[in-house]
Amino acid sequence: MTFRLELSDNNIIKNAFESIHKIVDEITMTADSEALRLNCLSRDHITFITMELQKTVFDEYECDKPEKIMIDSTEFIKILKKCKNTDILELSTDDSNLITVFKGDATRTFKLGLIDMEYDNPQPPLIQYPSEIRLSSTIIKDCLDDMAIFSDKIEFIVDEDYLIVRTDGQMGDAETKYIHGENIKEVSRSMFSIPRLTDIFRASKFSKECCICIGDDMPIKVTFTLPTNDGQLNYLLAPRLEEE
Amino acid sequence: MTFRLELSDNNIIKNAFESIHKIVDEITMTADSEALRLNCLSRDHITFITMELQKTVFDEYECDKPEKIMIDSTEFIKILKKCKNTDILELSTDDSNLITVFKGDATRTFKLGLIDMEYDNPQPPLIQYPSEIRLSSTIIKDCLDDMAIFSDKIEFIVDEDYLIVRTDGQMGDAETKYIHGENIKEVSRSMFSIPRLTDIFRASKFSKECCICIGDDMPIKVTFTLPTNDGQLNYLLAPRLEEE
Amino acid sequence: MTFRLELSDNNIIKNAFESIHKIVDEITMTADSEALRLNCLSRDHITFITMELQKTVFDEYECDKPEKIMIDSTEFIKILKKCKNTDILELSTDDSNLITVFKGDATRTFKLGLIDMEYDNPQPPLIQYPSEIRLSSTIIKDCLDDMAIFSDKIEFIVDEDYLIVRTDGQMGDAETKYIHGENIKEVSRSMFSIPRLTDIFRASKFSKECCICIGDDMPIKVTFTLPTNDGQLNYLLAPRLEEE
Repeated sequence: MTFRLELSDNNIIKNAFESIHKIVDEITMTADSEALRLNCLSRDHITFITMELQKTVFDEYECDKPEKIMIDSTEFIKILKKCKNTDILELSTDDSNLITVFKGDATRTFKLGLIDMEYDNPQPPLIQYPSEIRLSSTIIKDCLDDMAIFSDKIEFIVDEDYLIVRTDGQMGDAETKYIHGENIKEVSRSMFSIPRLTDIFRASKFSKECCICIGDDMPIKVTFTLPTNDGQLNYLLAPRLEEE
Repeated sequence: MTFRLELSDNNIIKNAFESIHKIVDEITMTADSEALRLNCLSRDHITFITMELQKTVFDEYECDKPEKIMIDSTEFIKILKKCKNTDILELSTDDSNLITVFKGDATRTFKLGLIDMEYDNPQPPLIQYPSEIRLSSTIIKDCLDDMAIFSDKIEFIVDEDYLIVRTDGQMGDAETKYIHGENIKEVSRSMFSIPRLTDIFRASKFSKECCICIGDDMPIKVTFTLPTNDGQLNYLLAPRLEEE
Repeated sequence: MTFRLELSDNNIIKNAFESIHKIVDEITMTADSEALRLNCLSRDHITFITMELQKTVFDEYECDKPEKIMIDSTEFIKILKKCKNTDILELSTDDSNLITVFKGDATRTFKLGLIDMEYDNPQPPLIQYPSEIRLSSTIIKDCLDDMAIFSDKIEFIVDEDYLIVRTDGQMGDAETKYIHGENIKEVSRSMFSIPRLTDIFRASKFSKECCICIGDDMPIKVTFTLPTNDGQLNYLLAPRLEEE
């Protein structure tokens, strides 16, 4: 056995995949001696997800040689949902399965067949942003929830003082104004799909704080970092253009 | 700006519209210097609703000249549902919108287009009743919930000692007996639609106590009054006749 | 009136029927001077249910002469669901009805028509088992919930040390291992329907502990006993054969 990890704070994995499985059907993880990583592009090619969980996140972590783990995310989340808060979560692999074990009153083992994927996931582009804002994930979650009343797209506007999130719908408009407190020199605005951002912000339980990067008609970058700083979830979502 | 109000106990508005939006699609409110009022007839013409919230209900209340506010209740309740208990709720109008603002960690603004209505709402008739009973709203809510097992109509019978609520169904019968403790001289009975009464008693969170007026084959009048006595919701529901 | 009982801990009845109504449409109870009993065979003939609630279970219990009570379980559970935890539950009969009364702030009476049944329920067979295991009902409930991810059938294997519950599915496998701590000499294995076992284990609120009896390709017997030892629910479920 080359790869095996144990995690008592199993919500870290559960909360990450609670969002990931909504966006990507087939996921590729790689485990090496330093970290468990994930790098995926959504089937509709508008969202990149990367995850890095360093070995210090886990109670136990072994990986003698790098390994690729390709699984169906829909099946994996069904398994993860059965994990109780008090269970110790163990992940390992054999030749053809990802083996998930929950250790509690009983020992519960799930073998999920590894899949073959036809293509390699491309790397997300590196982008320089004019503005970066740290805030409570809940504020954005609320915006998305509010604005879904009127529309399926949402505009982010950043100026020197405010983050403004707004939507125009046939029945009405909604707008949230938030004083960001960052040092921002430039006004940026960009529009995004509400349903996809809603799936991204399902990761808000992974970390109460998030960091969003906005630029004029540029992809939005959303980062959730564990309080212990050794785990991160990154999303890059392409903008929707006004004409759409 | 002529009309603006602020309310920290936002449940008063939320609970009222939780019931109203189920019964009336398009609502007309009027604001004057004394109160925010509502007067609506259901599309099927069997239910009148009137609401009066005096200005003392609100933390702040301004209205220089009387104003009519006509909105779609389905859209308005969607907005109200986004209001958190800790938010301060602000309502105001511009030329073409009802503007709802929730003030919390962020300031969230919703503009809902005002609508034109073809007709004026008639006034509910003034009726003298032989019996009036004050009781916990929950008791009637339970009756409706119980009796929906067997039927979609319910009979109220008031005698000197009891309020009896009953239904006969194909599979079985149900009956609730409640000692009313009022000074009532006359027996009255009348039958009503369970689904509509259920929508009316969604207002039971507006006020834990209610007052019901019953007469022989007369409309039932249900009144919910705020504990502070400066706000009231009134419903008048036409009876169902036995032959139906 | 020959039969009448009163029960303040109404969850005993509610929890029992929460499971029973899922398995049997028409139920026959018999009341005699000692106990209220139930003896039913599921319409698909794969599950026997017997219940015995001795008179000491109830706050009050009267039954002058033995009585058969045949009712529709779907209607009866609808009534039971309206019973609040603080209500006193009363059951009695008249010539043509089972009368359920909930005594709380108001007195709520439900009459449910007795039905005629064409056939008498056969008695469940008496079976000798090679293994009997007492354990927390939750452990089996979890297994069922886990394994429904991959399949609709589940295998129970008992050996000297372990109870092993497992399933094989197209997408993956799941297995739970539990150290049973009983004195068992023989290996037994048998396979069952997950949905039916799930309905049976809805009775886990009737008693936190259960007793399961397993034999090679034999029916599984599941027994829930009240902590006070004067009430019992028994299920006998036929095995599914491998070829199915």
